[in-house]
Formats: sequence, structure tokens, C-alpha cells
Amino acid sequence: MGTYDRARFRPLIWHDRAPAFRDGADTPRAYLERCLAVIAEREPVVRAWVVLNEVGARAAADASTARWQAGRPLSPIDGMPIGIKDLLETRDMPTQMNCKAFEGNFPKRDNAAVRALREAGAVILGKTVTAELGGSHPGPTTNPFDPARTPGGSSSGSAAAVGAGMVPAAIGTQVGGSIIRPAAFCANVALKPSQGAINRGERQVTSQSTHGVHAGCIEDVWLAMMAIATRVGGDPGRAALTGPSAPPAAQMPERLIVMETEGWKDLDAASIAAFEALLARLAGQGVSILRRGDHPLIERFEQGVAEARAISATITGWENRWYQRALLDNHPGGISARGITALERAETLTVVDYQSALAARDEAQARHARVAPLADAVIALACPGPAPLWGGDQPGQPLAPRPTGDVAFNTPSSMLFAPAVTIPLLAVGGMPVGVQVMTPPGQDARAMALARWLEAAA
Amino acid sequence: MGTYDRARFRPLIWHDRAPAFRDGADTPRAYLERCLAVIAEREPVVRAWVVLNEVGARAAADASTARWQAGRPLSPIDGMPIGIKDLLETRDMPTQMNCKAFEGNFPKRDNAAVRALREAGAVILGKTVTAELGGSHPGPTTNPFDPARTPGGSSSGSAAAVGAGMVPAAIGTQVGGSIIRPAAFCANVALKPSQGAINRGERQVTSQSTHGVHAGCIEDVWLAMMAIATRVGGDPGRAALTGPSAPPAAQMPERLIVMETEGWKDLDAASIAAFEALLARLAGQGVSILRRGDHPLIERFEQGVAEARAISATITGWENRWYQRALLDNHPGGISARGITALERAETLTVVDYQSALAARDEAQARHARVAPLADAVIALACPGPAPLWGGDQPGQPLAPRPTGDVAFNTPSSMLFAPAVTIPLLAVGGMPVGVQVMTPPGQDARAMALARWLEAAA
Repeated sequence: MGTYDRARFRPLIWHDRAPAFRDGADTPRAYLERCLAVIAEREPVVRAWVVLNEVGARAAADASTARWQAGRPLSPIDGMPIGIKDLLETRDMPTQMNCKAFEGNFPKRDNAAVRALREAGAVILGKTVTAELGGSHPGPTTNPFDPARTPGGSSSGSAAAVGAGMVPAAIGTQVGGSIIRPAAFCANVALKPSQGAINRGERQVTSQSTHGVHAGCIEDVWLAMMAIATRVGGDPGRAALTGPSAPPAAQMPERLIVMETEGWKDLDAASIAAFEALLARLAGQGVSILRRGDHPLIERFEQGVAEARAISATITGWENRWYQRALLDNHPGGISARGITALERAETLTVVDYQSALAARDEAQARHARVAPLADAVIALACPGPAPLWGGDQPGQPLAPRPTGDVAFNTPSSMLFAPAVTIPLLAVGGMPVGVQVMTPPGQDARAMALARWLEAAA
Repeated sequence: MGTYDRARFRPLIWHDRAPAFRDGADTPRAYLERCLAVIAEREPVVRAWVVLNEVGARAAADASTARWQAGRPLSPIDGMPIGIKDLLETRDMPTQMNCKAFEGNFPKRDNAAVRALREAGAVILGKTVTAELGGSHPGPTTNPFDPARTPGGSSSGSAAAVGAGMVPAAIGTQVGGSIIRPAAFCANVALKPSQGAINRGERQVTSQSTHGVHAGCIEDVWLAMMAIATRVGGDPGRAALTGPSAPPAAQMPERLIVMETEGWKDLDAASIAAFEALLARLAGQGVSILRRGDHPLIERFEQGVAEARAISATITGWENRWYQRALLDNHPGGISARGITALERAETLTVVDYQSALAARDEAQARHARVAPLADAVIALACPGPAPLWGGDQPGQPLAPRPTGDVAFNTPSSMLFAPAVTIPLLAVGGMPVGVQVMTPPGQDARAMALARWLEAAA
């Protein structure tokens, strides 16, 4: 069993070092060296990284050290070592997407979010492992709390690196559940922002994907997100993430709506018990907890997301099929068997299937808009219990359908375009289990404020 | 002066050949050979093409010939020779965007729209000249009605190839005025569809760009657009172009709103006179013509698009700056001086400038939604009079600001996300001048139906 103990777990924090960076008691270079020491110790088992740029990182950390000591940091995250999911282009490292067809791919340019992080002084330390092309075929990363288990996916390396204390923050991306689920399996805090709130740069091809930040605490998530949003804005034509420049202050909810999702019926008893105990504690502190039997709008809302997995799979499968087919045509054998199966399924879809899925998504969004005013936010598990065991594909055996875990708790916020914050509030069998707070699109800062209160209250 | 005479001009038509293709009196292969003969004759002066794939085209035309003769064409455009603007990726030809930095770029994959055209049996004949990166730095193409004049841009080659009768149709793209203006300068019919109505494939980075079809007649525009939309749909998350599979029947408008745009005050007297004479003819046939003095909502609408050029330049400049800067960093000298000037201007913009431009665009869209119910459609010139003279940049002289003509009549429909159809209704000084019909977003088929009536009535 796992080794996660909520009372003892000390995530790696960045923001509290600012006074020490200013007065020289600590430096970004020394911080980076501590990160590198943890990586040296844990990477052989965790395997979170595809590539590290230690030389570039040390130079960037030295420059940051000088800026802090001169009293002129570029931003609150000046000097922060950060990992970049290997789907995003970086000018100084290859971008290989855990996909044979992209082996050696090195476009030598920065994704807009990476560029913004560099402009804010952040130290781009390396590329983190992704499931193939951001899908479900896993990389080699293991869960930092139990190497027999998946770290989740597709932002596997970003979640594991943060959970292992290798870096204070890392960039993930989510189209179905690829930020929130691995973050929840690895005891990260993470924000999957409102759709469009962070500029995805060259990665505009799917209509419900986002970039988000994994970190050890709410404050660092917010500071890194705002560092990006204030420099490169949101997606083309969309509103950028907005809110206070400092992390939002804790805010107590009066009412929370519990979202079960289609994953509820498959949950293990221990995870249900842990979540119910949390809800009881919150109720004990005066928060009204609304369940699906309490109001017809809540029931309608649940029904609107009851097929979120299938709707999301149709939308994303259709949107990805052109470039994936071209990739495979140009690189026979360049995509895994699991990836090809997903592509071939997507190629059975028609324009009308896609339009129907978009219509179902519109309707779910309308139901969310109607139910949201009943409470301050929606609360839900961020993953279906603890990370499942995963020992790799077995030769001759059928491919396991969900090697990085089930997305059932994550596709709702993705298809609703809604911000979701996961915080590591629960432990089940020695493994972390995240709890998420979801608000309507555009209310990312409020989700962070509510999560901050929950973290303190739980 | 030019050689355009509306009464004598015979554009190249595709759709009327279907019976002959079926009974063998004509064949797609013979049609292609006629196109190649026109290209051989006129290309040395018009210079519409970057590259032709004659071998591939002949093979595709032969296959199409067999399908028609077997009574099994893949679509109404099976066998149609078509040019592809050299911004879109094609698996069998390089994609060089008239930009040094992309010299030799050959990603060997088809843009979603190109893929759809191939699936419909169309013959992808070659890549047509674009202004650099779809911006304003022109290529070598000349106007088919006067080689001393620009064909317009950035879809220069697509417009000129269709205007010269080299192909019955070509694909263009518009972010500001890059389909409608060159089409209007070259006597094409063209549709700039509703934003998102045609899947742009890998070209998702700008929020108000579209793919559209240039052709010799309304019917061929519609058949090619629908062939794409029914196979690859719209942009991710957007509604695809919808409407009848056959070209919409002509529909007489009861009322038309005249849109002047910010270009009106700079128009030459002959173009104004030609447009006013057209309006008088329409009025004589019973169409009510509403002008900006006739209703306060029309005046508000005009004010909403009065700075459309500047708003569009801010939005598009901001959206393109990340990839263009990376391109220039990786290829010093790889972008023209004119392109670098535009990039450097875009790099002075802040997130707030961009958000303000988006807000202005939202407001203009709201004004269009309010004014639209007053009439069947908006009518306007599609270009600021005839194509201007253009002899190339002069060494030692300042760069001309608008070598492919002014976008003033085109940025409104782009920023309004509204479909616009241009039809070659006017001749001024021996040069074609297009007139456009604009309807609210999603009403592309209605715009085509109204344009069809106008063409017959004019």
C-alpha cells in the first residue's frame, strides 16, 4: 500500500521563499539545486522526466538570483523551477509527446505559455512525461506514493514530479481529465482553468482542452497561472484568466452542490466513506450540502453530465482524427496500438455524430448555468478513489482500457468549460485522493478562494 | 486600362458539365487539359501558381472520368480542378506561404479542407500564390484583367487563377479581407463563410479567419463549400456550414441595408456612381434600399465597424505574434521587411489592448444582431473600387502600406463573423468591382440565395 499521510506530507512550496530570496538567506539557484537533488534521488523510480536542461536551468536560476538580490524580480515566480508537459513546444528541448512519430521532433520554439513563464523569470527545468499524444497510452512514470500504481494521465510526469517534491510546479493539459485526475492521484493542487483562459499557443486543435498548473499549494498555482495569463492572455478570441494578482483569500462557502458524476456507482467503499466524512465535517462547520435528491435542477444537472465520458470522447476523437491520421500515414508504426484503436474508433464518426455531441455539450452547459446559482460551487471527488495499480501492458493480453485511471470525475468540468481546482484533502489506503471545487466559467479566482477555505477547514 | 467587360466575360463553370461527364460528351480529364492549356497560355503573365502537380492531377482526373462514366461520381465536384492557397498544408506539394522562412516546408499532410476535397473526388491541381503568411507583403501575381494592377491579397493566386479561367475554383482564406477583396478585384464569385463554418484544420491560431471558395459562379462556390463542410465539418466546437446540398435557389430581397464602411470616404467617383446606379436599379425592381440616415440602428451599426481595420489588425497581430516571432528567431531574415514591421507593431500590444479589441468586436457583433432584422441582408461594395496599380516595391523608397489594396470593405464581415458573398456586378474603367451581400452568422445559404437573385437582376 501507499505511503501518503496527509498529516505528514510536506509539499514543495515556492511563494514563501520570497523574503529569503530578497535578503539572500536563500537563492533561486540554491532552490534549484535542492530540486535537482530530489530528482537525482527519486527519478530512477518515479521517471517523471523525458529530458532535463540542467545547464540552462542553472544559468536561468543564477540570473534570477541576481534579480532578487537587486530587488527587481520579474514576477513572484521569478526563479521558480518548472516542468513542462512534453506536448508543449519548447525552444531548448525536443517535443516528443511520448509518441514514436514525434521522436526527435525539435521545433525550437516556445509554446505561448512557456514563453510567458520565461518572461516572468521562471526556470524551465525540463519536459515531463505525457501519455502518448495526450491520450491514454501511458509513459513510464510511476506514482510517487506507490511505484506499483499509475500517476494518472495524461499529465503523468507533471503530477508525479510535483507529488515527489522534484519541482514546486509543472504545466499540465486537460482535454478530458488529464490535469485534475493525475494531480488528485499525486497529492497536487491543480487548476484546470475555464476553457480559453490560458493561451494554448500552437495547441488550438481541440475545443475543450486547457493548459493548467500543478503545484504544491494553492498560492503557487495561482501565481504561475497569473504570470502566464497577464503576459500571453487567453486563447484567440477568448477572455483571459482574470483575478487578483495575489492568491485569492480563503472564502467560506455557504452552500455546496455535490456532483456524483457517472463514476459514483463504481467507487470503492473506502473512498465513498472518506468523501462522506469530509462532507459531514463541512456540514458541521455550517456549510449546507446539497445532494441530487434535494432539488430537481441538481438532478437535471447530473443527467446532463451522465454521459460526459462518451460525449467528450466523441468531440475530442473527431477533432484529433485529421492530424493523427496524417501522422500515422507519414510514420507507419509511429502510434501505439492503443492510440490506433482510439483513432480508428474516431474515424467511424460522422459530422452528424460530432454535431450531436456538441449539442449535448451545449445542453450540459445550460444545465450547469441553471444549477450554479443554487450554491457557491460544486464539490466532487477529483478522481475515482486512489490511483489504480498498473504494471504495464502484458504481451498477448488485451490492452487494459484505462491504464491511467478513469476520467469519469473529470470530463464534466472539461465539457462544461468550467474551472476546477483539485486539492489533496483525502487519504485512502495510504494514497492521496483529491477533492475538486468547480465554479461557472470565468470564476476561476472564486474556485481558488473556496478551495483555500476548504483546505484550511478539512 | 483593364479589359473586363461584364457583358462579354465568360467565367469557367463546372456544375453544368455533369450531364456531359455522365454521357461521355465531356470528361474531367478533358476539362483538366483545357485548364492546363489556359494556364500554359496565361501563367507567364498572371503568375498565380507556386507549384502545379500535373501528374497527380491527370491521374485524379482519369479516375474521376471513370467514376462519372460508371454513374458513380463521389460528389457533384468529382473531378473539379482546384487550386489551394499556399497557406494550407497539402500532402503532395510543399507549403511555403510566400515566406523565406518556410522555403522547402513540406509537412506531407493535407489540411482538413484539402482532405475533404480529395474525398469528394476534386483534383488538387496546385498551390496558389499567397501574400506572405497571409499578410500584406505581396507575391508576384498580377491581375488577370490588367497586369499593371494587383490581384488583391492575400489570396492573390486563387483569385487570379479563377479570374483568368485557369481553374473553376480555388481555396482562399480571410482574416481581414483576403478572400472577398481579391475575388472582387478579379471578377470571382466567393464566399467568406460564417466564422467556424469550415474546418481550418491546422490553421486554428486566429479567431476571425476562415477558409472560403473562389469560383466562376455561385453554384460552384456552394457545391465546393458543401463538399468540404459535409466531410470535415466546421472548426473545433463550431457549427459547420449548413444548407441545401444543391445550390440555394435565387431569392429576391425585400429590403437591403447599405453598409458604407470606413472605406466610403476614400472611394473614387466612378466606383460610387457605379454602385449608386446598381442600387437605383434594385430600387426600380422593388427592393427597398435603407441608408445610414434612415434608421438610428443603421447609423449605430456603421459606427460599430468604423474602426474595423484597426480592431482587426490588433486582434490578428496579437494572435499571430508568438509564432511569427519564433519563426523569425529561427530564421533570421526569413520574413520580409514589411512583415517584420507588422510583427514589431503587434509586439507593442498588451493583453489589455487585445482584450479591448475583443470587446469592441463583441459590441460590433451586437450591433449587427440588432440591425439585421431590419432587412434581408447588408449590401456593400466588396472592394474600394478597381484594383490599384502595383509595380512592386521600389528600392530606396518607403514601403507602400497597402500593396494588395485596402481592406476597409472586408474587415467588417470578418470581425462580425458574418458570411459575405461577393459577386462581380460592376465594371469600373475596364476592371471588375465586386458587390457583397452579408447576412448574420449561420445564414450563409441565405446570403448565397440573395446573391443569386442580385446577379440575375443586375
